[in-house]
Amino acid sequence: MQRADLRERVLEANLAIGRAGLVVLTFGNASAIDREAGVVAIKPSGIPLDSLAADDIAIVDLASGAVVEGETRPSSDTPTHLALYRSWGDVGGIVHTHSPFATAWAQAHREIPCYGTTHADHFDGSVPVTRLLTPAEIQGEYEHATGEVILEAFAARGLPPLARSAVLVASHGPFTWGASVEAAVENAIALEAVAASAYRSVELAPALEAIPPELREKHFSRKHGPAAYYGQPA
Amino acid sequence: MQRADLRERVLEANLAIGRAGLVVLTFGNASAIDREAGVVAIKPSGIPLDSLAADDIAIVDLASGAVVEGETRPSSDTPTHLALYRSWGDVGGIVHTHSPFATAWAQAHREIPCYGTTHADHFDGSVPVTRLLTPAEIQGEYEHATGEVILEAFAARGLPPLARSAVLVASHGPFTWGASVEAAVENAIALEAVAASAYRSVELAPALEAIPPELREKHFSRKHGPAAYYGQPA
Amino acid sequence: MQRADLRERVLEANLAIGRAGLVVLTFGNASAIDREAGVVAIKPSGIPLDSLAADDIAIVDLASGAVVEGETRPSSDTPTHLALYRSWGDVGGIVHTHSPFATAWAQAHREIPCYGTTHADHFDGSVPVTRLLTPAEIQGEYEHATGEVILEAFAARGLPPLARSAVLVASHGPFTWGASVEAAVENAIALEAVAASAYRSVELAPALEAIPPELREKHFSRKHGPAAYYGQPA
Amino acid sequence: MQRADLRERVLEANLAIGRAGLVVLTFGNASAIDREAGVVAIKPSGIPLDSLAADDIAIVDLASGAVVEGETRPSSDTPTHLALYRSWGDVGGIVHTHSPFATAWAQAHREIPCYGTTHADHFDGSVPVTRLLTPAEIQGEYEHATGEVILEAFAARGLPPLARSAVLVASHGPFTWGASVEAAVENAIALEAVAASAYRSVELAPALEAIPPELREKHFSRKHGPAAYYGQPA
Repeated sequence: MQRADLRERVLEANLAIGRAGLVVLTFGNASAIDREAGVVAIKPSGIPLDSLAADDIAIVDLASGAVVEGETRPSSDTPTHLALYRSWGDVGGIVHTHSPFATAWAQAHREIPCYGTTHADHFDGSVPVTRLLTPAEIQGEYEHATGEVILEAFAARGLPPLARSAVLVASHGPFTWGASVEAAVENAIALEAVAASAYRSVELAPALEAIPPELREKHFSRKHGPAAYYGQPA
Repeated sequence: MQRADLRERVLEANLAIGRAGLVVLTFGNASAIDREAGVVAIKPSGIPLDSLAADDIAIVDLASGAVVEGETRPSSDTPTHLALYRSWGDVGGIVHTHSPFATAWAQAHREIPCYGTTHADHFDGSVPVTRLLTPAEIQGEYEHATGEVILEAFAARGLPPLARSAVLVASHGPFTWGASVEAAVENAIALEAVAASAYRSVELAPALEAIPPELREKHFSRKHGPAAYYGQPA
Repeated sequence: MQRADLRERVLEANLAIGRAGLVVLTFGNASAIDREAGVVAIKPSGIPLDSLAADDIAIVDLASGAVVEGETRPSSDTPTHLALYRSWGDVGGIVHTHSPFATAWAQAHREIPCYGTTHADHFDGSVPVTRLLTPAEIQGEYEHATGEVILEAFAARGLPPLARSAVLVASHGPFTWGASVEAAVENAIALEAVAASAYRSVELAPALEAIPPELREKHFSRKHGPAAYYGQPA
Repeated sequence: MQRADLRERVLEANLAIGRAGLVVLTFGNASAIDREAGVVAIKPSGIPLDSLAADDIAIVDLASGAVVEGETRPSSDTPTHLALYRSWGDVGGIVHTHSPFATAWAQAHREIPCYGTTHADHFDGSVPVTRLLTPAEIQGEYEHATGEVILEAFAARGLPPLARSAVLVASHGPFTWGASVEAAVENAIALEAVAASAYRSVELAPALEAIPPELREKHFSRKHGPAAYYGQPA
């Protein structure tokens, strides 16, 4: 992958989450990895979307986190992204937002159950919520520890990252990912739609239960995996 | 009807539900039927609205569902549309979305009672919710079975399709229809407005009852049927 | 007032309520009166806002309701507008919408109490809700009777129309008015903002009471009446 | 600071709160201070944002409130702004809106607890709500008294203004401020996002508690103060 191309895709991903209404001010960031080169391209810290250019995208080393190219300071959330990339070899892109409804679930410390087929089209079950970080984790390498509690939440549930490509960090907000940064953006948009519908569903039916597993599996496998028949043939 | 014209109308219908905020990503599809030719024009599967062109619209045979023209794979929901067209001879167009508020009611398995004249202007009573599909239906011809449970919900209530041109598929989302695809789009927009107002009405008045039948009938017959006096003379 | 000018202002008022998000499809209408000429200019029935032109605005006789100029059939709500213009000599314009939050209050049959200064800046107390129409009123001259129940609600409370320029018709939606059609549009926008804030305020504080009268009077008189000091000197 | 420059910045701040959806009609105003010259530039009263020009921005004397330049009458809320500028020497800009969710909390007389990191990124604890003004304060120098109850709320809690740059005036709406008017605008946008997320969080978790102090301090100090590492190096 050309470096300029990687930067353009990461720029476009950051602009896309802004256009989709998931990010106001500088509340969000998207990154993509070039696994061959061992580098991650990520939004710079604190630069608003309307003045962001491809040249501002920071390139950091996957292993050390050091900036290897570019004049900008990378997102303060970079260590969270790196922790996920290091553990999850099939993840190609990551998106973090404070999108309105997903953040409300994260702040309420509630996972989002699978209440319908919109959810099942994208995520094969509840979107998990992490535990709160401990005081020691917060006062130490905070952003790295945020990545660790995400990994912990997935390991504890035995979840492969690409079947359930979203998480709610407790008291914070959502992260999504995918095989590419474009898929991570799509998951961020889907997550917010799902979070909004789920919020209104539990207002209408407080005791609502998740949909039956066969319906959830049908919809997820319609779009993902070897038996998928959704979309155009490759 | 010219084939090119049918495609243009179906393209425009798909774009219209996007512009109206009813569809994000690829969560929706619109179709129209040419009954003389025995074909249905429908959105292709998984193509985002901003890159959709008239030539992408798939043309399928009403009886067999086979693609009779076009290079694209039709929407995975095509068998649902076909089931409705086959049983309901006066339906000319169908729209499926995952619009935010209508989907919340569908996920909550609650019909939308007629709480006001906006509702009665478009639908002559509660918007019904289907039963959940059985595991056998889900694992079999799922999308066709989705059409069947819609037909079943209307048959059980003795409803003619053009008087109550909307349904909520349980745990899934809304379908609307009409004498034309343009009417189906209008009903999709009206349904979402009605679903949003109904949601907020029950928050403000949890024990709210439907409006009296004479008010509902007045508004519906003002716009529909032989005594209609709404709109411009034909 | 020139007839063409009246039409332009009514066209602009109808477009303004669309731009403000108060009207989808054809759910709304605005009118203005020329008291000298004894005519009312009003939106035609069922024509969507994006294809509306000044020449489509219907001109009807205040006393008889007959069309005196123009090729279009006036809004089906015209008799409601006329009833208000006939009784309220200082009203210059009227707006009717099915705006989302105001309609929810109307459907819930709840008046909107004055919960804050945004409300008091525009309306000097609760926005009243009418009684439901009787079956006889619904089956008779329905739209005229809608005007009558609005007048009845204001007469019963002893309210002068220009101090409380908004009403919720039960199970239907809001009407607003003002000394001019531009003021009626402003009141429609303010009412929807007030209805939304009030909805959320009662969710946060179910037992919330109206603000004290001295605060309500202060804000209303800051903007209205002889002691007003808000805005630019005339 | 050049006077023309000050006016341009205040114009842009007023336009920015409109574009961000925080202001409809004339429900808001922004100001900036030139401490050397002892003057404040502020939006004129009652002029809608779409017809506002830099020349309309009023320049008033910090001490007396008298207009020292410009043809317009300054915002009726000018005495509130002046009271804050006089007491808080490090405040450079102030924004007042009736933004939808923040106003709902203000009308409900509830402070906004710190429920997540979005909040902690901007405000180092609960956004306070003032007491209601007394009848005497309302009937006297009302807008000045509004400034006084804000100052009282901060003094009673021992809060430095720049660590908690937002307040909810009871039964009214929010004010925000910052070292510059641009920072005040950013805080107004952040406050509305925080108010919306907090509203939905308490719907999902009615007994929700504020986040632990170490998480709140971590996020606030990441962006503010000597140890900040968020954003680009100056």
